[in-house]
Amino acid sequence: MKILKERILAEGQVFSGNIIKVDSFLNHQIDVQLLNEIGKAFYDRFKDHHVDKILTIEASGIAIAVIAAQYFKVPVVFAKKSESKLTTGLHYVTSIHSYTKDKTSRVQVAQSYLKEGENVLILDDFLANGEASLGLIDLITQAKAKVAGIGIVIEKGFQEGGIRLRALGYPVESLAIIDRVDENGIHFR
Amino acid sequence: MKILKERILAEGQVFSGNIIKVDSFLNHQIDVQLLNEIGKAFYDRFKDHHVDKILTIEASGIAIAVIAAQYFKVPVVFAKKSESKLTTGLHYVTSIHSYTKDKTSRVQVAQSYLKEGENVLILDDFLANGEASLGLIDLITQAKAKVAGIGIVIEKGFQEGGIRLRALGYPVESLAIIDRVDENGIHFR
Repeated sequence: MKILKERILAEGQVFSGNIIKVDSFLNHQIDVQLLNEIGKAFYDRFKDHHVDKILTIEASGIAIAVIAAQYFKVPVVFAKKSESKLTTGLHYVTSIHSYTKDKTSRVQVAQSYLKEGENVLILDDFLANGEASLGLIDLITQAKAKVAGIGIVIEKGFQEGGIRLRALGYPVESLAIIDRVDENGIHFR
Repeated sequence: MKILKERILAEGQVFSGNIIKVDSFLNHQIDVQLLNEIGKAFYDRFKDHHVDKILTIEASGIAIAVIAAQYFKVPVVFAKKSESKLTTGLHYVTSIHSYTKDKTSRVQVAQSYLKEGENVLILDDFLANGEASLGLIDLITQAKAKVAGIGIVIEKGFQEGGIRLRALGYPVESLAIIDRVDENGIHFR
């Protein structure tokens, strides 16, 4: 996706440990016009996958999921990382390790919002080692729902997530795949 | 806002401690069509306030803010509750106590994304005691930006947040104000 790649090149910041930060338009400040193009691109790639619902994980994924959902005309469910006084009823639970936060979170979805047989599209901002997607797949599997596909804004092609998910047979569509980062900057596949 | 109130009456769940849960369409599963009507309603109420940016707080606020931002044609910034390896640079920091999570969080916005003189519209899902809005106002004030207004989806009119914010002179627009909850259900103002 050309305008996304141009934006990553113009504003993406690279930090040690292969960390790529796009806080100026995706993960902290959000350019909603760009997000609309991202939503349309996901629709274009998954429109024939009979998507019933979009599943993502808080926090950044929510913005992507709700904008994309306007094109699919389906509801969004976001998996929650923490419990509150509002946590009641039965949940599907999994655990996801976040590399960038260096912490493992218990992640859950209320059983009412993932139903047997539904085709669920996973959308997320980054794909690195695949932990978040695998956790969401686990929740979908527990619900006896189906994974319609996995849509990723930025895949770090030099980490193993993409290989793992594709080897498991899931349709993975990444709008930008970064193959490496070095002293000359960011290199796309 | 009629369709919102009808939805709250149909699907809102009331728990002890005056907790009102709308997880089926706003806080866990999201009805994006309803969210669009909410976004339009905020635009209608604040379109003359010269909004330059929308500020919210993760997680549920993000969905509301990005959909509304499509009408205002401005960027969204969401305040973050936790630090990660990606947390670099200078931040405005405040602390916000969450009643429903029973915990005080350090909340921050990178200084790059709130600028002196900007008119910032705060959007959030619930207004109860006003802690979240007051925290976001604190961040805006630290940045020498201005509060264009505060838009709330559901105000708990029986808690003091609305009174506190209006007494401070901020334009507060709540799409549904709940005056009380009792054994007969939810009563709107």
